[in-house]
Amino acid sequence: MNNPYQERLRKCNNLMKEAGLDALLLAKPANMFYLTGDGRLCAFMIITGDGKVGLGVPRTDVDDVKALAHSDNITGFEDEVGMIHSIAHYFEHFGIKKGSVGLEYTFLTQSMMGMFTHPHAKPEGVVAKDCTHIMSELRMVKDDEEIRRIRAAAKAADTGMEAAVDAVVPGSTESQVAAEAEYAMRNAGAEEFWRTYVSSGPRTSIAHGLPTLRKLQKDDLVMIDIHPIVNGYSADICRTVCAGKPSGEQQAAYDLYLKAQQATIAKAKAGVGMEELEETLHGVLKEAGHEEHIFGPPIHGVGIEFEESPLPPGHAFFHGEKEPPPLASNVVISVGNCGLYMGSWGVRVEDTIVVGAAGPKILTGYPRTLIPE
Amino acid sequence: MNNPYQERLRKCNNLMKEAGLDALLLAKPANMFYLTGDGRLCAFMIITGDGKVGLGVPRTDVDDVKALAHSDNITGFEDEVGMIHSIAHYFEHFGIKKGSVGLEYTFLTQSMMGMFTHPHAKPEGVVAKDCTHIMSELRMVKDDEEIRRIRAAAKAADTGMEAAVDAVVPGSTESQVAAEAEYAMRNAGAEEFWRTYVSSGPRTSIAHGLPTLRKLQKDDLVMIDIHPIVNGYSADICRTVCAGKPSGEQQAAYDLYLKAQQATIAKAKAGVGMEELEETLHGVLKEAGHEEHIFGPPIHGVGIEFEESPLPPGHAFFHGEKEPPPLASNVVISVGNCGLYMGSWGVRVEDTIVVGAAGPKILTGYPRTLIPE
Repeated sequence: MNNPYQERLRKCNNLMKEAGLDALLLAKPANMFYLTGDGRLCAFMIITGDGKVGLGVPRTDVDDVKALAHSDNITGFEDEVGMIHSIAHYFEHFGIKKGSVGLEYTFLTQSMMGMFTHPHAKPEGVVAKDCTHIMSELRMVKDDEEIRRIRAAAKAADTGMEAAVDAVVPGSTESQVAAEAEYAMRNAGAEEFWRTYVSSGPRTSIAHGLPTLRKLQKDDLVMIDIHPIVNGYSADICRTVCAGKPSGEQQAAYDLYLKAQQATIAKAKAGVGMEELEETLHGVLKEAGHEEHIFGPPIHGVGIEFEESPLPPGHAFFHGEKEPPPLASNVVISVGNCGLYMGSWGVRVEDTIVVGAAGPKILTGYPRTLIPE
Repeated sequence: MNNPYQERLRKCNNLMKEAGLDALLLAKPANMFYLTGDGRLCAFMIITGDGKVGLGVPRTDVDDVKALAHSDNITGFEDEVGMIHSIAHYFEHFGIKKGSVGLEYTFLTQSMMGMFTHPHAKPEGVVAKDCTHIMSELRMVKDDEEIRRIRAAAKAADTGMEAAVDAVVPGSTESQVAAEAEYAMRNAGAEEFWRTYVSSGPRTSIAHGLPTLRKLQKDDLVMIDIHPIVNGYSADICRTVCAGKPSGEQQAAYDLYLKAQQATIAKAKAGVGMEELEETLHGVLKEAGHEEHIFGPPIHGVGIEFEESPLPPGHAFFHGEKEPPPLASNVVISVGNCGLYMGSWGVRVEDTIVVGAAGPKILTGYPRTLIPE
């Protein structure tokens, strides 16, 4: 892999200039990983308008970060007060006394904001602004190496899904189904995974079905949503399967959802708008009379995070996003994030795809059937 | 289990009164779970000064929450804008037009703060204040049922640790060791777990060793830190083991750390201060000349979260904590959270214990030996 970090930094500087930001002060591991090759908890990164970079990490981690991060300035701190002083040190070292600094308003808690804008950290003349949209725009289009990694994650996702579906038998708990998926993903080369969702029976009709100790019943629907991370990049797949024989209504809802998802995927070529994709997926469901059973935005980006930009235009608050531009080639998205929730059960099918000039490349391929093959 | 929620709400109201808060607006699942029996993502809870409660959850989740939460007022919302309107609805319904509302400054991101204090959500006359310390104080002393659940989590932690240590063989990846722990914990009755840490070789010397694809080498030290959740309650255990034969220096450092940890646990009886415990653990290491090799606070609380109050007095910013009072009986803590980091390797041993009137009850019991038995 060529070193992409200088080019990313150059683009970041251009976006900062457009947004009138003189510096960025980042702490989100995904953003730091994108810009330096290393992202970790309890660390920060300062970027100046002319491309200088300073990293602050726990004292114990300095050597490890030196080996992983493309950055010359790495300083270690002892504790929270030390972190504040390290931030002040970089502002001084880089001669930043006024102007605007971009902070991650969608990542920093109110107390971390207090720390990063503390009078002992940030110079009084420097004003804090949100920089979420800059990092989103920067990370939106993936390069070949990023797509290669997302493809590897998609392969681990397929392996995980197969193991999970194999464990869908009456008497198993939702947690045990999750266990099989996670175990298989790690053994398929995932160094990590994001939160696993497994819900069964009536729980398939709730928005965020984290696994519980509920035992699967015969003929339950089971919804499985998994997100492995391979070499820092993620994939996102969801399948709904039946632990027995689905009702006619369940099969019809599943077939409809799959039709809506596939119609949406078919439209995922360069130039399409997020809204058009949303309307396609919701449209098929609405036409069949299911308007009141739809919940949640159907599309989101996939990359270092399993859920990242482009995000639906309606997610302004939690995600601090502007309306995304028409999708370019090599934007990676997940299609099928909203559910068809019928009250006592729900269905959903989700795949990770690459937007291409001529059409989509579908990265996750586990069979899409309500009754496992 | 008796319904403890009314009593918790009464105590909460007393603490609110002391802090001059007329209402709380909570969103942290752990806090909502404590006060109602149900805590989930993308939901909120309002509590008035006279003990009235309102819950807002995704529209899809209303029936599920009704079955789980001890609360009469449950409203469903469609999206972020709907969430804002639901918050406004409760302020109006409860007649709250002025005074102070407590928000979780250590949980809400800056953008979520923007949402919760949006002019369409919070009445103009109501001022937002941090309520982190109220929820900490409220949850600090555990009742018998809580301790029973933490004990069950500790049992799952022991099972997970055994599986992880069995997987410590040269050639395995850190991720595979994590896989064994997580798989075993879920099969031992955990519905979930918090982030698993597995680091090996030189990575045992960093502060937050998330598992990577690094393959264990012969004679590597391996640090494993796991946190199962059983019926909503967590445990915390860390062990360091050697994938072969440790050096004399490694064995000596391990023996010293274990001595420091055990000396600290021995002092964990009602009335002891967090600072005294910290000084005991750090003191043994410092006396042996290791002052510069210590990193991190050695003690934290365990409960619904694997890391919760009581938190070290020095963690003001991230955790928004006041200095904790002397520990009462039935406070549950984890001892051994700081490491002895030697640069090219590190050691750490951590256990979950209950502070008792006469002395500690140790809940995690996996053998404490550098060379696995």
